[in-house]
Amino acid sequence: MSHLSGSPTGPRVAVVLSGCGYLDGAEISESVIALLTLNRAGAQVQLFAPDKPQMHVVDHLAGTPQQGATRNVLAESARIARGHIRSLDKLHCADFDALFLPGGFGVAKNLSTFAVQGTNGSVEPDLVRVLKDFRAANKPIGAVCIAPAILVLALHQGKVTIGEDADTAAAINALGGSHQTCSVHDVVVDPARKLVTAPAFMQDAQLADVATGIEKAVAATLAMV
Amino acid sequence: MSHLSGSPTGPRVAVVLSGCGYLDGAEISESVIALLTLNRAGAQVQLFAPDKPQMHVVDHLAGTPQQGATRNVLAESARIARGHIRSLDKLHCADFDALFLPGGFGVAKNLSTFAVQGTNGSVEPDLVRVLKDFRAANKPIGAVCIAPAILVLALHQGKVTIGEDADTAAAINALGGSHQTCSVHDVVVDPARKLVTAPAFMQDAQLADVATGIEKAVAATLAMV
Repeated sequence: MSHLSGSPTGPRVAVVLSGCGYLDGAEISESVIALLTLNRAGAQVQLFAPDKPQMHVVDHLAGTPQQGATRNVLAESARIARGHIRSLDKLHCADFDALFLPGGFGVAKNLSTFAVQGTNGSVEPDLVRVLKDFRAANKPIGAVCIAPAILVLALHQGKVTIGEDADTAAAINALGGSHQTCSVHDVVVDPARKLVTAPAFMQDAQLADVATGIEKAVAATLAMV
Repeated sequence: MSHLSGSPTGPRVAVVLSGCGYLDGAEISESVIALLTLNRAGAQVQLFAPDKPQMHVVDHLAGTPQQGATRNVLAESARIARGHIRSLDKLHCADFDALFLPGGFGVAKNLSTFAVQGTNGSVEPDLVRVLKDFRAANKPIGAVCIAPAILVLALHQGKVTIGEDADTAAAINALGGSHQTCSVHDVVVDPARKLVTAPAFMQDAQLADVATGIEKAVAATLAMV
């Protein structure tokens, strides 16, 4: 039994990670805060990540890429997951009530090519499948930080927020979404499409403020199950 | 300004990390929960880690060491810290009101040799200096998971807990400490020495239960400032 197994009657939530460390993987604090909030709500959480090499490895002290270094997205995500994680190709919408995506550059580098190609980028095929299936089944999707942009890159629809970054907001609108400005403490809900989004560390904020927004995003996502 | 800078009037707290991932570094969830609790309390947090190679690198999916791989403790800890972290040799007791140590095998592998040598092991010299200085200045020290054992390995005193693991409890008693059994939801306080300890993931528990214990440990540490 994992530390995220929750209550046997709790909602079943799939969480997709993109590595471990905000410059080349999942934003660690966002991931842990989402998982803690889900566990406190009794959710039965299963973590997933793609079994593939990271786009690159960034030295988080220097802030620069490490030449020649390679790491696997699934194995690095397993650090956050304490080993309880499965390959993204095993994620099937039928097994879950909701989906949640923490942020970090890994979402734009490993789950998609948005960091390099912007609106011309593509989303990992397994994640496109999962997002389309959850949308088609009208099951709620929560996403924070940069993840809402990748949601729109895959679905070409949705009222979402990444906070107030003008370039990313313009990209979301160009892709067929509708960006809403939002404070770090709050969330944007698209009730028709059951999408919940929040800015998290897309804003320059204190950890406590980021946590407030993520907690609201998790609560709003679970409320639509 | 970092996401952990807190309030300008808040207590100054040094937090020591030991890498990024529970099998070869700091336990990620314990670290984030401690930092969030400190930030919510308005503490001015500065993170530290030793600038040295990890004892080894463990694949957290397979659970086995990666032959030939090397990672630096400070650079990996910087993933949790979002880059806002300093080398442990820069940590001086005079600059802080309290010290906090999250757990993970990294504490026993990178901050000490306890994982390999047990009660015959030694603690990283900079951490011994820091722990002795905080104790001599009667400034509070909080520690969770396996970190309380390393506290006793350095100080040879203290009423502490690592939960209920019999072997580790015996080691603590052999080193001059006094182990107290404790549930994952609770803390042990040694008021005379201003030590606060909690089991965290030394118990097989849900993340929410681990968080409850860590939140109490942070609150009890700050209460003695």
